[in-house]
This record gives sequence, structure tokens and C-alpha cells, in this order.
Amino acid sequence: MTCPEMNCSVARTLEAIGDRWTVLILREAFWGARRFETFQGNLGIARNVLSDRLRRLVDHGILRRVPLSEAGKRAEYRLTAKGGDLFRVLVVLMQWGDRWTHDGDPPVRLVARNNGRPVADMAVCDSDGNALALSDIRLEPGPGANDLTRQRLAELGGDKR
Amino acid sequence: MTCPEMNCSVARTLEAIGDRWTVLILREAFWGARRFETFQGNLGIARNVLSDRLRRLVDHGILRRVPLSEAGKRAEYRLTAKGGDLFRVLVVLMQWGDRWTHDGDPPVRLVARNNGRPVADMAVCDSDGNALALSDIRLEPGPGANDLTRQRLAELGGDKR
Repeated sequence: MTCPEMNCSVARTLEAIGDRWTVLILREAFWGARRFETFQGNLGIARNVLSDRLRRLVDHGILRRVPLSEAGKRAEYRLTAKGGDLFRVLVVLMQWGDRWTHDGDPPVRLVARNNGRPVADMAVCDSDGNALALSDIRLEPGPGANDLTRQRLAELGGDKR
Repeated sequence: MTCPEMNCSVARTLEAIGDRWTVLILREAFWGARRFETFQGNLGIARNVLSDRLRRLVDHGILRRVPLSEAGKRAEYRLTAKGGDLFRVLVVLMQWGDRWTHDGDPPVRLVARNNGRPVADMAVCDSDGNALALSDIRLEPGPGANDLTRQRLAELGGDKR
């Protein structure tokens, strides 16, 4: 991956979770899975692939490995605060899939425990809570922008702006 | 991928966009890129990989290929409605990365054109707009649930519920 990509929060997020199995492991973690065998049984994933992905998630600080015995052979994998904050990513992926890949007939619905009503579609909003379309938004260099990012934003965008 | 995964909007979304390059191609499309050479130059991606990913995005109805000449050799790739609806996915990935991979110093900021104020953090909300935590939410079978999904939801969840 070339340099400009990595001065980008999308690219860095994909570096941490940009693998299909990784996201499905996280789905299972949010549904309550903690043990290697539970992930393995629920996903039908090869054990070596699961080991590798769990290790990567621990390396990225998304899961933490908690030994269950003195010898440390048995362990649980628990979501950290960083991992728990991926819940909104899972929900937005699910809602997009509900709309576009299941013809509006979702396999699973998320409802609020207190009133049983469906969770709202997640939207991009301004600070007052008004929904924003792509055309309502512009990009600015942030405090972490490097020279290449500043240059790209100044030249923005591609073939049609 | 085993059967139960595919009765799942997360898994189906990843089937469409679950590849690091694919998401970065979409990022460029949202920034205005339409031409093969623009994607290629901005991302530094190998031409054969780019061709493959663009073809997949067209197959999934996320981009459409619009010929620019009679012979149809030159073309643009434009976001469809289904593709444009991925904007909220990109924003949620970016915001998570801003918080957790750039120490709160984002390279790029999204601001509302009308008042210049930053776009709000996307959150999971109930139908009245109140933010919901994971523990405020339960899962129900939706209209598209198959038997396996119903069974898994009834048994929910993993090791700790």
C-alpha cells in the first residue's frame, strides 16, 4: 500500500478489520462468543485461519485474550473498548445489506429492548442531527493531515469536480 | 462460507465490498474519481487488480460502466444508488479510524457545506434518535430469517449470555 493511503482513517480501519472472516468473528463476539470453539463451531472456519485472525485482532487491540487457567492454555477472547466501538460499523454493514442484498427482508432485526421498536437506519448527520447527503459535505485537511493529503485535498477530486 | 453466514446482511455486504482495495476504490469514487487512470494513479494499485475489482463492483451493481466512445473502449465508472448508499459505510469506517488509529488527529475532516461544522459521529439510535448501546439492543428474526438463523437466535448467544 502506498504512502498516501495510510494517512487515511478508512485505510487504517481496513488494516485492522479489512478481512471477511475478521468481520464475521467480530459479529460472533457481539453475539456473545468468547471461546475459540464457539467461534469455530458457529462460523465453520478452519482452525488455523481462526487462530491467525484472533491473533491479529488481539495485536490490533480489538480483542483481548484472557487466560482461564493457570497454565494459560484455555482462554477467552473479549472485546476491548476499541473493539466494542466497532458495533456501529457492524450495524451499518448490516443495514446496508438489509436494504440492498436481502430486498428489504432482513434475516435479523435489531430492536430496542425498552420499547421493542426497530433500531433506526444509521445516517450521516450534522451537529444538529439533520441528515446530510454526500453533496452537503466537503472535505478539509484535519490536524493529522500530511503534505500529500493536503495536496490531494487541494486538487480534489477526480474526473468530475 | 457455510450456509448460516449467508442468511446474514453483514456477510452479504462483505461479499460485495469485503476487500481492502474495493473499499479504497469506493473512497476514490466518492471523492470524484471516474476514470480507470484516475483510480490507478490515486491508489497506486496494479492494473490487473484494479480491473478485477472494478468488474466485481459493476457485477454487484455498485458501480456502472458508462462507455465514453462509440467503440466503448474508454469508459467511466459511476456510483449507482446502491453504491452511493455506501457513503455511510465509508463515513463510519473513517470515524472509527479517526478515534482509534490516528489518536484523534484525523487526516481529513468532513464538514457540512452550509455551516462549516464537523459532521457528527454516527451512532446507533432508536426511532426517536436516542443513542443505543449494545446492551440496549436485542436481536429478533426478521422476515428473511431461515430456519438456521431462527435456531441460532433462539440459542443466543455464545459463552456469556
